[in-house]
Amino acid sequence: MNTATETKLVAIIGWQEGNAGQISSWLEKQDEYSIACFVHTEDTPPIVDRIPRDVAQFDYPTNTSFKGKPLISSSRWIQELKKRGISHVLITTDNMQERQEQIREARAAGMVLINAIHPSALIMEDAVMQDNIILHARAFIGYRAEIGAGVIINTGAQIDHHCSVRECATIDPAAILAGNVTIGRFTRVHTAAVVKNKIRIGENSVIGAGAVIIEDVPDDVTVVGVPGKIIKRKGEKNRE
Amino acid sequence: MNTATETKLVAIIGWQEGNAGQISSWLEKQDEYSIACFVHTEDTPPIVDRIPRDVAQFDYPTNTSFKGKPLISSSRWIQELKKRGISHVLITTDNMQERQEQIREARAAGMVLINAIHPSALIMEDAVMQDNIILHARAFIGYRAEIGAGVIINTGAQIDHHCSVRECATIDPAAILAGNVTIGRFTRVHTAAVVKNKIRIGENSVIGAGAVIIEDVPDDVTVVGVPGKIIKRKGEKNRE
Amino acid sequence: MNTATETKLVAIIGWQEGNAGQISSWLEKQDEYSIACFVHTEDTPPIVDRIPRDVAQFDYPTNTSFKGKPLISSSRWIQELKKRGISHVLITTDNMQERQEQIREARAAGMVLINAIHPSALIMEDAVMQDNIILHARAFIGYRAEIGAGVIINTGAQIDHHCSVRECATIDPAAILAGNVTIGRFTRVHTAAVVKNKIRIGENSVIGAGAVIIEDVPDDVTVVGVPGKIIKRKGEKNRE
Repeated sequence: MNTATETKLVAIIGWQEGNAGQISSWLEKQDEYSIACFVHTEDTPPIVDRIPRDVAQFDYPTNTSFKGKPLISSSRWIQELKKRGISHVLITTDNMQERQEQIREARAAGMVLINAIHPSALIMEDAVMQDNIILHARAFIGYRAEIGAGVIINTGAQIDHHCSVRECATIDPAAILAGNVTIGRFTRVHTAAVVKNKIRIGENSVIGAGAVIIEDVPDDVTVVGVPGKIIKRKGEKNRE
Repeated sequence: MNTATETKLVAIIGWQEGNAGQISSWLEKQDEYSIACFVHTEDTPPIVDRIPRDVAQFDYPTNTSFKGKPLISSSRWIQELKKRGISHVLITTDNMQERQEQIREARAAGMVLINAIHPSALIMEDAVMQDNIILHARAFIGYRAEIGAGVIINTGAQIDHHCSVRECATIDPAAILAGNVTIGRFTRVHTAAVVKNKIRIGENSVIGAGAVIIEDVPDDVTVVGVPGKIIKRKGEKNRE
Repeated sequence: MNTATETKLVAIIGWQEGNAGQISSWLEKQDEYSIACFVHTEDTPPIVDRIPRDVAQFDYPTNTSFKGKPLISSSRWIQELKKRGISHVLITTDNMQERQEQIREARAAGMVLINAIHPSALIMEDAVMQDNIILHARAFIGYRAEIGAGVIINTGAQIDHHCSVRECATIDPAAILAGNVTIGRFTRVHTAAVVKNKIRIGENSVIGAGAVIIEDVPDDVTVVGVPGKIIKRKGEKNRE
């Protein structure tokens, strides 16, 4: 053991129980990190709709705390963190454009964006990983795959060899990308969707839960079904 | 090593090769348990249809044994087990109502219902587990998920964060429940079916193999397809 | 440690980056094997179409090498290997009939066909494995399953208990076979296809990506969709 290795204090941007809450349940166990606080990036505390839940345990934020840690509500959150001596952050924001914006702000301010990688995730040789990447339990990153900054790969999702998943894309649980697939930035691949090998999917598109994609997909569309069909283009209403 | 730790003698209720047989192949390797016997809960030995199998190895029970262990055929099986000094049981019965009934009888008689959890299963923080739960190889139980008594989660099935899977439900191999899903008791989710996040599925329903569920499902129905459609209600014939 | 255990020199038949390249990235790390060379089974070096790739790292063969190892181009490759003192081979050829042919030739010449099993693959008790089997990362082989010679099981594919996958079949990433399924030789199950329990699929058939198979499938057909429908028989054009 190297006593010189210090635990890094990390601020988690976001307070959603299914994102920041879930990630914080395992991130802190990795020794490398200690969660200093959660951040709501507005000047007033979050207004939370408490909906009835089927499970007994579910955390909501108060005005000043979330999961036993301080909750900072501030649009000048970077300055607030610096004041507290916190230089490491993880952006967990679900909205992909907001996530990119917050990553850019943090990077411009010289903060360190960490990766949050669950110990059961498996990363194969020669994979290339940018920063602020979240790999949930059992995520798989194949040989020579490339994962852009701000990408979230959810539980058990499989990104096979030579895939490219670009900036701030979101891959939901158990989604499957076969080899040599490209996912454009800001594209969301919903739960258990499947993309055949060598397919390219554009930017800012949505692949529906359980869809099976066997042809290239352009930018700015929503695709659902087996095989996947475009049901919506950006600015249009649903076609069906 | 604590020499005071004793291996528990367990009776397995059931003798189906794909259920009890498969589970016993790994349960006994966990040191904590030793299989004392299998139980057929009727007074006459099981009548077995030997169907031609494509694999060479497949065990059928004889009148008095299964897989080299005694097979007890008795409707008064709890008394039989007590007579032999066996107080731990695992109910593997495929029929969900029968499974519940046997669990209730064993519990009422003061027996201990064990959980059978394969070492490759992964259980996340703050998950809540009742008893007589079977987690096959690579089953996944997410953060704060709740698993009821008698639930069977088969190979590689993924139950994500804040899911609630209720009493005696059965989740078949590679089925995917995204976050915040509820599965009612006695509901069976067949192989590789997918349930989108926040969906509630009622009691006593059947989700077909490969179905993709994107809307809530009531009690007592059968749902198949992508997206899932109700094809049958309890007491009705198929609609299609 | 047994100092008598020697690393075996292995020739990899094939040089496709997504097959031989990917496999070699982890095979050599297993101590048991050292890759001596790659083999192109024709007398002239491979002609390679360099297509633009979305990832930065992608290896193509030169006339004499691939991935830093010698590339041998020879139709008399077995004699070439023997001349070099190499007696262990792994055939990675994608075409299933060619793979079988090469396996037969190597076996007839007294060469040893190795299995390539990624350390994250999971093989359950009493599974039966022939030779020249490739199990990619996180492949799963269930209790008493039988895997024939030359079978390739790709990333995260799940072959459940009592399945029989016959000679030179190919199971693509994340495909799911429930219990007691048979896959005939030379059949390809594409990415994330699902086969319900107890289904038998014939020889030389193709199961499309994401298909869900709930009825037996004969020889020589192509099946796609949910539920799977035959769209082509051998020698016919597509029906749809």
